[in-house]
Amino acid sequence: MSSPASGKKRHGKLVSQVITLAHGGGGKAMRDLIDDVFIEAFDNEALNTLEDQARFSLSDLQQHGDRLALTTDSYVIDPLFFPGGDIGKLAICGTVNDLAVGGAKPLYLTCGMIIEEGMPVETLRQIVASMAQTAAQAGVMIVTGDTKVVDKGSCDKLFINTAGVGIIRTGLELGADKAQAGDAVLVNGMLGDHGAAILGARGDMQLSTDIQSDCAPLHELIDVILQAAPHTRFMRDATRGGIASVLNELAEASRVEIEIVEAKTPIRQEVKGFCEILGLDPLYLANEGKLVIVVPKEESDAALHAMKQHPLGAEAARIGTVLPGGRPGRVTMQTVFGGKRIVDMLVGEQLPRIC
Amino acid sequence: MSSPASGKKRHGKLVSQVITLAHGGGGKAMRDLIDDVFIEAFDNEALNTLEDQARFSLSDLQQHGDRLALTTDSYVIDPLFFPGGDIGKLAICGTVNDLAVGGAKPLYLTCGMIIEEGMPVETLRQIVASMAQTAAQAGVMIVTGDTKVVDKGSCDKLFINTAGVGIIRTGLELGADKAQAGDAVLVNGMLGDHGAAILGARGDMQLSTDIQSDCAPLHELIDVILQAAPHTRFMRDATRGGIASVLNELAEASRVEIEIVEAKTPIRQEVKGFCEILGLDPLYLANEGKLVIVVPKEESDAALHAMKQHPLGAEAARIGTVLPGGRPGRVTMQTVFGGKRIVDMLVGEQLPRIC
Repeated sequence: MSSPASGKKRHGKLVSQVITLAHGGGGKAMRDLIDDVFIEAFDNEALNTLEDQARFSLSDLQQHGDRLALTTDSYVIDPLFFPGGDIGKLAICGTVNDLAVGGAKPLYLTCGMIIEEGMPVETLRQIVASMAQTAAQAGVMIVTGDTKVVDKGSCDKLFINTAGVGIIRTGLELGADKAQAGDAVLVNGMLGDHGAAILGARGDMQLSTDIQSDCAPLHELIDVILQAAPHTRFMRDATRGGIASVLNELAEASRVEIEIVEAKTPIRQEVKGFCEILGLDPLYLANEGKLVIVVPKEESDAALHAMKQHPLGAEAARIGTVLPGGRPGRVTMQTVFGGKRIVDMLVGEQLPRIC
Repeated sequence: MSSPASGKKRHGKLVSQVITLAHGGGGKAMRDLIDDVFIEAFDNEALNTLEDQARFSLSDLQQHGDRLALTTDSYVIDPLFFPGGDIGKLAICGTVNDLAVGGAKPLYLTCGMIIEEGMPVETLRQIVASMAQTAAQAGVMIVTGDTKVVDKGSCDKLFINTAGVGIIRTGLELGADKAQAGDAVLVNGMLGDHGAAILGARGDMQLSTDIQSDCAPLHELIDVILQAAPHTRFMRDATRGGIASVLNELAEASRVEIEIVEAKTPIRQEVKGFCEILGLDPLYLANEGKLVIVVPKEESDAALHAMKQHPLGAEAARIGTVLPGGRPGRVTMQTVFGGKRIVDMLVGEQLPRIC
């Protein structure tokens, strides 16, 4: 939080009701914003308010594993608030999940905010509170940040970037290139909820739905999976581009063919209906709390059973198989009508500003 | 670079001349953009193209020191290209400098891009090439990233976030709270060039100047300073808010009074003239290659001498002193007319979108 120079002692009090350019100017107004909104919410032992950097002992980090994982994501979602979450919750979950799917214990996040001049301070507070709450839930700390304010019309309300640092447990080797013939392909629940919820929340479609975003931190569920299926090959959260994109990347990197079964792929009736009306394919809809997991077939039942005990995996399912002797890089689906179709990489864009 | 799933092998070729929403959609177009523009330019051993995270051995990191430093900054500068640099160069230098001023060896950067629909691909290529070149110069690698495309009008051309990881050398303890009575306050050269160059480049002022931004990676100069002055207390790059803001933060965190001498403070005649016409104070102008350095007075000459041997410190100067028995938190200046004035924290904003 760019050196407010106040140590842990908060002494700034924000007087303005809306964000002005002064709040990004590097002077007193910015310091007050940081002290009163960010430090107030994110307060933690690692948040270094005196310097532009957070610092950690490497030997402390080594207690968690042997490799550092580093990731980043920007969040530009429209609208900022949606059923099941908001941009703040998303900005924590997305980066936590990008760390956790690689087998890393998520530890520290950075937070870069680009705010449009004129945003109500109260809205920002609400989003920051949501970030703080989600971070606490995910067991991560927001340890350093940056605030920019751009003039009205130069960005759409608020963009957030979070970068994340985690430590990968010793011995764990997960990767998109590790799938093998015979492996089982699992997901932890209903697909497409996030994409449908956002599209519904935009209101342009005049469709009202009860669908909630599935946005959630998955680190705990991932721990459960890794305990039940210690030879897990690969995990990936199926965000932009949906599970179709993850499966295609996996098939290509591992040089295997993957077949999924439509009848076993868990999608809500409401999401199916929504997609039919709009001509969308739920396999390409974004998720923010769903994983594609590949495990050896012997560990498939154990992984499924373990997931089902966890609230974020209650509707887990085995949706497919890595085919022996298939065509490398191809993803196919057995349809409910008994046919077989290719599930290709998304060409063009399905939905912009979905995360 | 969000898992293009191609390993090191680049197989995508961007056909479009402008960025479209599809380039942020998570599908084939995004993969081609990443492969053809980012991977092509940033190609390095650590860039993990199969996963959404980069991975490093902790024991390798320990060769550089004992603590991890983590920082982040978003860059929203307008215009994207300016005399002496561009947003890409800035996005590398800014984060490299935020690491280096804490005594860290900068190692790895993340790169989050928010691109406005309609940006020419050629412009993006130019900026990415500048990032790659500056990263090579600074000895850092861009190891993971994220690309978002927002609809036309939802951001101003391009915003870049970089987060940085570095390792702090064992035994080094720099901090804003470490200044002591009698210490010398140094800068490495002419102040305010960046702010004046950006303002000139915007063109609204109808002032044409030859002033170039001082944007530069300072890690090497910082090494030189730390060798010459091993008891250096504090360093900070004086960006938004200028040296006035840095000095105020320092005075407050260290509970000391700092006095600077106007006649010894290096500012170009052109920058002075520019500021006079516009009613600006050069002490508050942004810099992107200037440090405020505090060293014990015994090490002041050695630090100055060492800086002057380096191209980025040729015009280094001792500008002030940490006063014994002064008023904690206050910054004052001996003016050229023999008076003394308070140099306050910036109130309000001097120049928006300056970095």
